[in-house]
Amino acid sequence: MLNTKVKNRHSINMVVVISILFFACALLGSNGSEDLLNQAKQIFGQLPKAMVSEKNPITPEKVKLGKTLFYETRISIDGTVSCSKCHPFSLYAADGLRKAIGNQCKLNPRNSPSILNAADQISAHWIGNRTDVEDQAKQSVIGPPSFGMPSYAEVEKKLKEIKGYAPLFKEAFPADNDPITVDNFAKAVGAFERTLITPSSFDKFLAGDDKALTEQEKGGLKTFIEMGCTACHSGTYIGGQMYQKFGLIEPYEKYTKSEVVDEGRFVVTKNESDKYVFKVPVLRNVARTPPYFHDGSVDDLATAVWIMGKVQLGKDIPKEEIGNIRAFLRSLTGEIPEDALKIPILPSIE
Amino acid sequence: MLNTKVKNRHSINMVVVISILFFACALLGSNGSEDLLNQAKQIFGQLPKAMVSEKNPITPEKVKLGKTLFYETRISIDGTVSCSKCHPFSLYAADGLRKAIGNQCKLNPRNSPSILNAADQISAHWIGNRTDVEDQAKQSVIGPPSFGMPSYAEVEKKLKEIKGYAPLFKEAFPADNDPITVDNFAKAVGAFERTLITPSSFDKFLAGDDKALTEQEKGGLKTFIEMGCTACHSGTYIGGQMYQKFGLIEPYEKYTKSEVVDEGRFVVTKNESDKYVFKVPVLRNVARTPPYFHDGSVDDLATAVWIMGKVQLGKDIPKEEIGNIRAFLRSLTGEIPEDALKIPILPSIE
Repeated sequence: MLNTKVKNRHSINMVVVISILFFACALLGSNGSEDLLNQAKQIFGQLPKAMVSEKNPITPEKVKLGKTLFYETRISIDGTVSCSKCHPFSLYAADGLRKAIGNQCKLNPRNSPSILNAADQISAHWIGNRTDVEDQAKQSVIGPPSFGMPSYAEVEKKLKEIKGYAPLFKEAFPADNDPITVDNFAKAVGAFERTLITPSSFDKFLAGDDKALTEQEKGGLKTFIEMGCTACHSGTYIGGQMYQKFGLIEPYEKYTKSEVVDEGRFVVTKNESDKYVFKVPVLRNVARTPPYFHDGSVDDLATAVWIMGKVQLGKDIPKEEIGNIRAFLRSLTGEIPEDALKIPILPSIE
Repeated sequence: MLNTKVKNRHSINMVVVISILFFACALLGSNGSEDLLNQAKQIFGQLPKAMVSEKNPITPEKVKLGKTLFYETRISIDGTVSCSKCHPFSLYAADGLRKAIGNQCKLNPRNSPSILNAADQISAHWIGNRTDVEDQAKQSVIGPPSFGMPSYAEVEKKLKEIKGYAPLFKEAFPADNDPITVDNFAKAVGAFERTLITPSSFDKFLAGDDKALTEQEKGGLKTFIEMGCTACHSGTYIGGQMYQKFGLIEPYEKYTKSEVVDEGRFVVTKNESDKYVFKVPVLRNVARTPPYFHDGSVDDLATAVWIMGKVQLGKDIPKEEIGNIRAFLRSLTGEIPEDALKIPILPSIE
């Protein structure tokens, strides 16, 4: 009986030792960059089918309503602002401007981030003042430089005035007696956004298709990892999982064309340590969403990569490696879901 | 020989007489409203497959480029204006505003007309200062309250800076050495617009399907004809074929909420007889494109119909008949072509 126990313990120890050895070898192999794919698999991750949330389960009815609301201008103070104004899919759900422009041409404080692959981040937007995509949608409608409505009640009034919304809200929120609320607006828009994932050739590579990336793209990926970019730009979305100071080594405004120095997350927390801290942006589709950085102060991707090397890593990345990294980043340009690209007809007022 | 000639002439005369009698009977029958369908067929017309133009033949390559350019904001002075800004398909290619808002929030002088079923009209827009859809597209890019660009040369420069346009223009205009021109921009956008027809249940009725319209809709159509609305709103597009004074019987501003009195076509011609004259608008999709009139001064369709009765016909149309006409006008709401509803991805700058 005792012998058996000792024997068993011995066997278990052997298994543990072998496992550790195996794991160490695997780590050594990948750390040595011998297996770019395995390394990439550890750092990044393939896209899910949708960015699910227990708080806001995705249903087809919610997505349908959310997609419709995404185009709704008639609930903004001047009738010109919808979600799609700053996030048009024709430009990969960013707007191509340095800083977003809202109702009555009001300038927003920061660059409009793409809402593609955006719903699994640490927070929405740049400085952590919107907890998730639902919170972002909700805050937008009363945001003075976005939809500019004076109150949630006024938004709900406008939604109710558009007669065609009643059945759509009822279908999306069948358990609610009075479903036309801003909270449900936010849930519907959020549910739609949670479907917006854009698989790219990089995902095919991560799935094991070695030919999905060109040699230059693989070279860029290798440099991206070795240079230390992945210290922040990691995970499924290649970013979006942490806050970080922009300008760790040198002040960013030394190289960007920033007109003002943005204090970033400090604006929210008032902690000195949060000065110039921003959310690390998702890099999926980055090649198609210029201009770059929180203030859109840089027009082209190569310059943006070079500046990141200077101010975050203290490195003057050589031109050839910039080109390779740029090629890798272009492999993150994905396919927008077909249904999202189909324009919904907005409900009739009468 | 002579006899034969006389005989032949006699036969021809008989045919002419019979034809005239037959035609007169047909006219009498329809004028007596016994056959609403035949009457409607004489006044209106079914939509063609596309609104062709000898000056600008439609090709798939031109349409593809034109649809892309339709969403292009990066060629406007502030990066916010594209054709789709004032003509979003989500709102049946009008914008829901009283007057269109262009770059830097500049107010346009008049309401944005839908560009659906718009390419076969006497002219584009309201007062005859744009000959056709191509001319409208061309003038827009340098229009101070629309795209606001300083010159055609600057537009062409911006188009050339977006690297992804070169192959698209080449495919659409293969015979041109330097295809990226504003004229070709206008032709491409025009070719796209020439495909935008929206068949509705009214077209099914015109094609002979008596059940395509409800009894109320048919009643509205009958009233619409008998009341005299078709004196101006006739043809395939139920309007768009002539200019007419707005306020034939009484000044329109007596009933609308117009802030200023627009002199209409007089602005273009300086002829006294053109004062308050506007193009008769196309009524297809009218139920889905409020607010109404050249200045968007009226919010709802029933009021717009009642005002038309007062100021154009000198009639106080009873409420029930307003309801019927409104029902008929709703039968003009059509299906937007599926391809037009698919958002194009704009070409990359780099």
